[in-house]
Amino acid sequence: MWVNINGQLLEERQATVSVLDRSFLYGDSLYEVARTYGGSLFLLDEHLKRLAGSAALALMPLGQGMDVYAREMKRTVEAVRKSKPGAEAYCRIIVSRGSGRIGFGLKNLETPTSFVILAEPIDRYLNKDFEAGQKLQIAARLRNDRRALDPAMKSGNYLNSLLAHLEAASEGYDDALLCNHQGFITEGTTFNVFYVRRGILATSPLESGILEGLTRRHLLRVAGEAGIECREVYFPRERLYEADEVFTASTLKEVFPVVQVDKHRIRDGKPGPMTRKLAKAFNAWAVTEARKAPVT
Amino acid sequence: MWVNINGQLLEERQATVSVLDRSFLYGDSLYEVARTYGGSLFLLDEHLKRLAGSAALALMPLGQGMDVYAREMKRTVEAVRKSKPGAEAYCRIIVSRGSGRIGFGLKNLETPTSFVILAEPIDRYLNKDFEAGQKLQIAARLRNDRRALDPAMKSGNYLNSLLAHLEAASEGYDDALLCNHQGFITEGTTFNVFYVRRGILATSPLESGILEGLTRRHLLRVAGEAGIECREVYFPRERLYEADEVFTASTLKEVFPVVQVDKHRIRDGKPGPMTRKLAKAFNAWAVTEARKAPVT
Repeated sequence: MWVNINGQLLEERQATVSVLDRSFLYGDSLYEVARTYGGSLFLLDEHLKRLAGSAALALMPLGQGMDVYAREMKRTVEAVRKSKPGAEAYCRIIVSRGSGRIGFGLKNLETPTSFVILAEPIDRYLNKDFEAGQKLQIAARLRNDRRALDPAMKSGNYLNSLLAHLEAASEGYDDALLCNHQGFITEGTTFNVFYVRRGILATSPLESGILEGLTRRHLLRVAGEAGIECREVYFPRERLYEADEVFTASTLKEVFPVVQVDKHRIRDGKPGPMTRKLAKAFNAWAVTEARKAPVT
Repeated sequence: MWVNINGQLLEERQATVSVLDRSFLYGDSLYEVARTYGGSLFLLDEHLKRLAGSAALALMPLGQGMDVYAREMKRTVEAVRKSKPGAEAYCRIIVSRGSGRIGFGLKNLETPTSFVILAEPIDRYLNKDFEAGQKLQIAARLRNDRRALDPAMKSGNYLNSLLAHLEAASEGYDDALLCNHQGFITEGTTFNVFYVRRGILATSPLESGILEGLTRRHLLRVAGEAGIECREVYFPRERLYEADEVFTASTLKEVFPVVQVDKHRIRDGKPGPMTRKLAKAFNAWAVTEARKAPVT
């Protein structure tokens, strides 16, 4: 793991923050996770644009221009690739509101907004078996309501999803999906969810209370270009139980099959043909796109 | 500020945690804030019992016995009092789920649950003027729903209340109250709220989705013993606009008057007689109680 704190590259054991950092005290921070293809940070502009959107929702002035964040993320990824040539990298940027005296008020801020970048070889995140797929539990816990804490703000307040994950794991599931207050499926703990029914691809609309995943965004386009009908619809859990195929979409795991939801096996319990087709199509698009417009 | 990390007393500038600490990454931590009267940490047992309740809600094993937390909180307060003899102290304990690799799963934990204690002279927290009172805004933002993230769990995920505070401050208010999904007032950002109407004292019930404040708990008892009728009732914002008196209850500010809610001045805009009476009665009880059963 390489760490970059406010522009200073550090090894992991040297990388610390004050106990008065507001991300430590209150989760008062925002973040993004990007990855490389061919060593190039993929969709970096879109990630940073989304970070700016989170900052607006959090009333948080970003301490640096997007060019600085982009430059420092690339530097940190380069450090990973120097220590492990040819590796693809995971890269997380965290922007904290800063640190100072205890208390919510901005008058307590002494050190303004700061950033921390974490990067390491991506292998550890990809060791899941595509053929085995994932077993997901629909959490009893509801997704944070947009009117309380908007899921479109990617913040350091992650207990809602984190607890759904731990609760699912304690019952033998790989991960969890969450419903909103109306009983509609929203998203997973760190991913969007799609299902296929009679050849039509569907996923929850942004208005259900989700983060707009960049994989979700581009997958809808890639699928549409491949002639697949795509819908953004509100749906209850039963729709997944009865689906022909279910899969998740995320930056790190791209398109990844779901073989069980709650106690319901999805069809024959194996990745379906549309899932395989879209996983290949998305990956091919990402690799080609990264090669066409490398971010270095 | 004195800091105690896992039993080691440090000065503020030495007090750091890893960027991989789960409280920094996810707000995956719990906390309590206690204060001293006469140098004795007040209601420490009740604070630690509430910490255990938060831990149960967060599925978090506490890393140490309550005796260790109590002992270390006292040690940290003693350090404050040595550097400033006679001072009363603010004391915050934060318990993080630990640190390790990135990822929600417990398999990523390398260093288990740890604690950080922050203590300093309390003066800074008490510089508010009782006679001037507070102006509160009822936030457009709703309080976290119990089914998503239970407010009874006092955690490091504080953005819901923190943003309500910042939004209120940006419009010239001192602080904010939040409503639940049914439109009933729940609590403030760091305090419970009470109102007085025709001599009867009222506050939101626990089931409205609040943290049970220890000041709230004991104030209800102190008021009852003084012959004041007390009710725990659901109420909409209009009830505050029309109240004879409104005040907040919290560990640090005890009973503290509210003179305005949204654009509505409460009566003549000055602390009311019941507020004055209860503020005195609560403080007298606390001081006496601390002297009777000192925690040292």
